[in-house]
Amino acid sequence: MADRPLRELDGKTPLEAANKPALDEIAHLGECGIMDPISPGRPPGSDVANLALLGYDPFVCYRGRGALEALGAGLDVQEGDVAFRGNFATIDQKGVLVDRRAGRVDGRVFKEYLTDVILPSYPEVQVTVCPTVEHRLAIVLKGKGLSWRIGDSDPHGGEAPPKKVEPLDRSPEAKGTAEITNELLQVLKERLGDCPINQRKVEQGLKPANIILVRGAGAPPQIESLRKLYGVSGACVAVNAVVRGACCSAGFDILEVPGGTGGVDTDTVAKARVVEEIIRRYDFVYLHVKGTDNASHDGNIELKIKMIEKIDAMVRHLLDHLNLDETYIAITADHTTSLRQRDHRGDPVPLALLGPEVRRDNVTAYGERACASGGLGRIRGVNLMPILMNFLGNVPLYGS
Amino acid sequence: MADRPLRELDGKTPLEAANKPALDEIAHLGECGIMDPISPGRPPGSDVANLALLGYDPFVCYRGRGALEALGAGLDVQEGDVAFRGNFATIDQKGVLVDRRAGRVDGRVFKEYLTDVILPSYPEVQVTVCPTVEHRLAIVLKGKGLSWRIGDSDPHGGEAPPKKVEPLDRSPEAKGTAEITNELLQVLKERLGDCPINQRKVEQGLKPANIILVRGAGAPPQIESLRKLYGVSGACVAVNAVVRGACCSAGFDILEVPGGTGGVDTDTVAKARVVEEIIRRYDFVYLHVKGTDNASHDGNIELKIKMIEKIDAMVRHLLDHLNLDETYIAITADHTTSLRQRDHRGDPVPLALLGPEVRRDNVTAYGERACASGGLGRIRGVNLMPILMNFLGNVPLYGS
Repeated sequence: MADRPLRELDGKTPLEAANKPALDEIAHLGECGIMDPISPGRPPGSDVANLALLGYDPFVCYRGRGALEALGAGLDVQEGDVAFRGNFATIDQKGVLVDRRAGRVDGRVFKEYLTDVILPSYPEVQVTVCPTVEHRLAIVLKGKGLSWRIGDSDPHGGEAPPKKVEPLDRSPEAKGTAEITNELLQVLKERLGDCPINQRKVEQGLKPANIILVRGAGAPPQIESLRKLYGVSGACVAVNAVVRGACCSAGFDILEVPGGTGGVDTDTVAKARVVEEIIRRYDFVYLHVKGTDNASHDGNIELKIKMIEKIDAMVRHLLDHLNLDETYIAITADHTTSLRQRDHRGDPVPLALLGPEVRRDNVTAYGERACASGGLGRIRGVNLMPILMNFLGNVPLYGS
Repeated sequence: MADRPLRELDGKTPLEAANKPALDEIAHLGECGIMDPISPGRPPGSDVANLALLGYDPFVCYRGRGALEALGAGLDVQEGDVAFRGNFATIDQKGVLVDRRAGRVDGRVFKEYLTDVILPSYPEVQVTVCPTVEHRLAIVLKGKGLSWRIGDSDPHGGEAPPKKVEPLDRSPEAKGTAEITNELLQVLKERLGDCPINQRKVEQGLKPANIILVRGAGAPPQIESLRKLYGVSGACVAVNAVVRGACCSAGFDILEVPGGTGGVDTDTVAKARVVEEIIRRYDFVYLHVKGTDNASHDGNIELKIKMIEKIDAMVRHLLDHLNLDETYIAITADHTTSLRQRDHRGDPVPLALLGPEVRRDNVTAYGERACASGGLGRIRGVNLMPILMNFLGNVPLYGS
């Protein structure tokens, strides 16, 4: 949601240009500030940004995106497991990657061909391959002596063959896990090549999903649940797998979101309705909308503004349907995504906090600059959760 | 440049009292804040302050001033070496220090008498003695098992004999290096005593430079170059040795500055001209003016204001001659030096940031208090470099 000033918007940011009366109302009635998601100037990936907003210092606890992605897909990932995210992709007869997304195929059609995978050289390793959304998938390896310190097979652009997965440190565990992964990718390639869906695609001149690319090998973050830290229950209202995964590792219930797509076509008000329904059953709800980020990565100013206005409608629903005498609401972004650069940037994000006991300040609008003069000053992402829990009276005293 | 409010200036700081339209223009068009050079309330030395502004946490990487001073004098200082800064000084016949600066002698006249120094007990130790500006000098020791954890021979004021250099920890390396240094200072004392320049001075009733005092033993800071961290090239436009040394350890090219003196008589516009000439060859230029600090240490209000106005002329030249569509400019101070206390203080310094994508705020003047209400809030010195590199798109994403 956060961005930089744009010439196209007469020097305003998309947030400043959007019509967002509900967000402004929260800023006006609440206490505002700006927040460096992980540290000043440092652009965060969505994985570490969401861990930080949940109160976990990613510089301490982060161990790769793959495990978050797999947890978010509903897979079981335990300490000792290694998980990846990946894509179905298309290689040509020479083995060169010609489509990193296999024509944005719906990978779930291949599910039955990717079960009961046994690796000939490593029969003791348990493999789970789970197609998620469109061409995306998650993989979990379970076995002894696995390491998440291994590289990607995804060459990340260019017409090149997929890369061999390499260890990222000199441990025998990393070397072994790289070998296991390379063998797995070979087995999956054979399975996909043989499967009738792909053979039909080839006959029809379509791009077969004939290879799987993996990236972001990871282990689950080493963190304690929010319940353990603050004695609160948490629910996640999000569709994006990595956001769900971060919430899952914090011990939250992951709720189904009818109408939620994880894209710009998501039904934001439907998300607010889910919150309205479940708010009495949980102490804390993490509500995430991905669409503004998608629009930013596409460089689509108009769409980003439209998404902000859809978020505003969602927030209006919350304001109208939650009991504001006993509810705290924090409105923020997990990172700045620059429309101009089409990528994440390390600029701070705006934050507005509404609730019965906040120190209301003079800020009257929600935006990157308006919030900067607010009473919260400039904080870090990891500060947000203790600040919220403090309002609930749930932060244990330090000292005595 | 930064200071505290002064009664003599009707409660204004020197920055607030000075006429500085160019600095104000940057504040007006840019984004402002205040910055604790190292940490709130903690007065930094110039060495650690400049390391922090270059993005290096001095609480982690700093290992004494001497190595920075020697690097800044153009000497070769490697890991394992120990370097000092020092003064030519005068002792009387009883060995008591009577002038810490030997009448502010130009030490370079002694250069030939200070070469090929061999220590009788430590012939394997290589010694370089390099007179720098006025009575100042730098010394580098190279050898095995040296430690920078040793004290000063400079008694820092009072009519006392020079101190014996003592180890600052219990390691045999510190003990050995203290002994080596004491022997070196004895050898240098003999050489200076014997040299005809000093004999002539004694005959003329002038103070001979008959001893060398050392202080600030140091090893080079353990840091990675800016190129390694962010992929950018850097240039240093400064005369002050410790500023040059900090830039040198960050991997910058140290440029000659015609007209630069490191004092209040420096030609600030000449410095801006150097920047103008080289800006296209470097990604980052560190431009430092020392004179405001000198004026502060002397308690000279008028001179400090004049220096600020000279800095303003320099900034005007930059505004007029740089391509502001593609250049970011940060204006700040490496520390607060109090005119009243005549020393460094731990107050925050003002910061103004101009550039194509900054979030312009409502600040209209450059000063300690005006900047405090700006959009950058309150940051630390080590945050500045990532914030700048973020605007260049050069900070690596953390996470994925």
